[in-house]
Amino acid sequence: MPRYRLLIEYDGTPFVGWQIQPTGVSVQGALEEAILKLTGERVSVRGAGRTDSGVHARGQVAHFDLERAWTPSKLRDGTNFYLKPNPAAVLGCSEVSPDFDARFSATARHYLYRILARRAPPVLERNHVWWIPRALDAKAMHEAAAGLVGRHDFTTFRATQCQAKSPVRTLDRLEVTRAGDEIHVRASARSFLHNQVRSMVGSLKLVGDKKWTASDVRAALDAKDRTACGPVAPASGLYLMAVDYDVEAR
Amino acid sequence: MPRYRLLIEYDGTPFVGWQIQPTGVSVQGALEEAILKLTGERVSVRGAGRTDSGVHARGQVAHFDLERAWTPSKLRDGTNFYLKPNPAAVLGCSEVSPDFDARFSATARHYLYRILARRAPPVLERNHVWWIPRALDAKAMHEAAAGLVGRHDFTTFRATQCQAKSPVRTLDRLEVTRAGDEIHVRASARSFLHNQVRSMVGSLKLVGDKKWTASDVRAALDAKDRTACGPVAPASGLYLMAVDYDVEAR
Repeated sequence: MPRYRLLIEYDGTPFVGWQIQPTGVSVQGALEEAILKLTGERVSVRGAGRTDSGVHARGQVAHFDLERAWTPSKLRDGTNFYLKPNPAAVLGCSEVSPDFDARFSATARHYLYRILARRAPPVLERNHVWWIPRALDAKAMHEAAAGLVGRHDFTTFRATQCQAKSPVRTLDRLEVTRAGDEIHVRASARSFLHNQVRSMVGSLKLVGDKKWTASDVRAALDAKDRTACGPVAPASGLYLMAVDYDVEAR
Repeated sequence: MPRYRLLIEYDGTPFVGWQIQPTGVSVQGALEEAILKLTGERVSVRGAGRTDSGVHARGQVAHFDLERAWTPSKLRDGTNFYLKPNPAAVLGCSEVSPDFDARFSATARHYLYRILARRAPPVLERNHVWWIPRALDAKAMHEAAAGLVGRHDFTTFRATQCQAKSPVRTLDRLEVTRAGDEIHVRASARSFLHNQVRSMVGSLKLVGDKKWTASDVRAALDAKDRTACGPVAPASGLYLMAVDYDVEAR
């Protein structure tokens, strides 16, 4: 049974999230339906990151198995044809080893969080940023972010419904930069807890607003207490940018 | 009578264009209605560039007069409040001299044209790019673009309905660069003819596809004949980025 790997882009706005839900259209469900229409096979598409409703992806990775072998480029084009009008597209498709698992073989996940910090509301970036109608101190946010990098118990920055066994994660990168009137937060780790990026960004935003200091962020982390977290940042600003795999797992 | 200058961003997709039309909502009309609701005054908003339906702006400039003086920041915020849910926003507002004319005082207009050159259809950039489902030769496009820079009779690259008295314009910049899977065409001039940027981009795209050479583009220019132009590029990829003014005209 051949296994295929997909590289996927989507606008998370109209979706209930990555995972199939009874309440609406999910990215996973839209993909499975498109593949069914194309191939006649009912498959299970497994993604590297189970993004929430409203969260976008430029580099989600998923895998699935087919009974019958397909040329990867035809699978990509045909799936894109049947995905319409859903705002999701397959950027790339390749056949991979049956050992490859989009979720468990991943060695790193890279997220970008976009804040639009300006007085006027978003227009061209509507639903694609978190709008804060004032300037934020990106330098202070960056300094505070450094205090979260490394191996920590991230209980504070984890949704109460998070199903991970351990709250300990190693955050490899958390950087804040300014790009015009946007502030970009880039986060990388082998894996993240549920809502971890949005929880960290919500607390860093308090630093940008000069309501919190870097010490407050560090104290929130050390509290290992969900109630110590700042308000969670909205889904609209978050993008799953890329997922890494070891060369042998490709 | 105080005169105000606006810096405006809009998503051109749902608009019939900048100018008021009987057929639908225009950016100009949406602004005039918002200002009427805010101030009670019926004004005429004049823009620097009369963008077509579907064309976007990150830096359109306009002016209008009020009977009663307003604090510019309140005019900006109030207009934005009443502009909703139209995808247009006032980024900046300032009081200017009664001599200032957004259209006639402009010394340069800067446009960006975005082409998404990849097999998969646009998702996050839907309505915001021209999708070409294959790679284009950006270097060849850039070389061909150089042949259009300077003072020329642009009859070939001008809509038949263009109302300008003369087809002669001085194109100060026409540059093609690659940015990931996008190709960006940047065009600057004191003023452009109707559809000039989209006409030039449409012909450069033929070069990117290796259907035309730089000589073909130059021959099309020299023909001074509208029928020598390649197919006009769609509105969705075009952005009015900025308009320049002399310091004394501000």
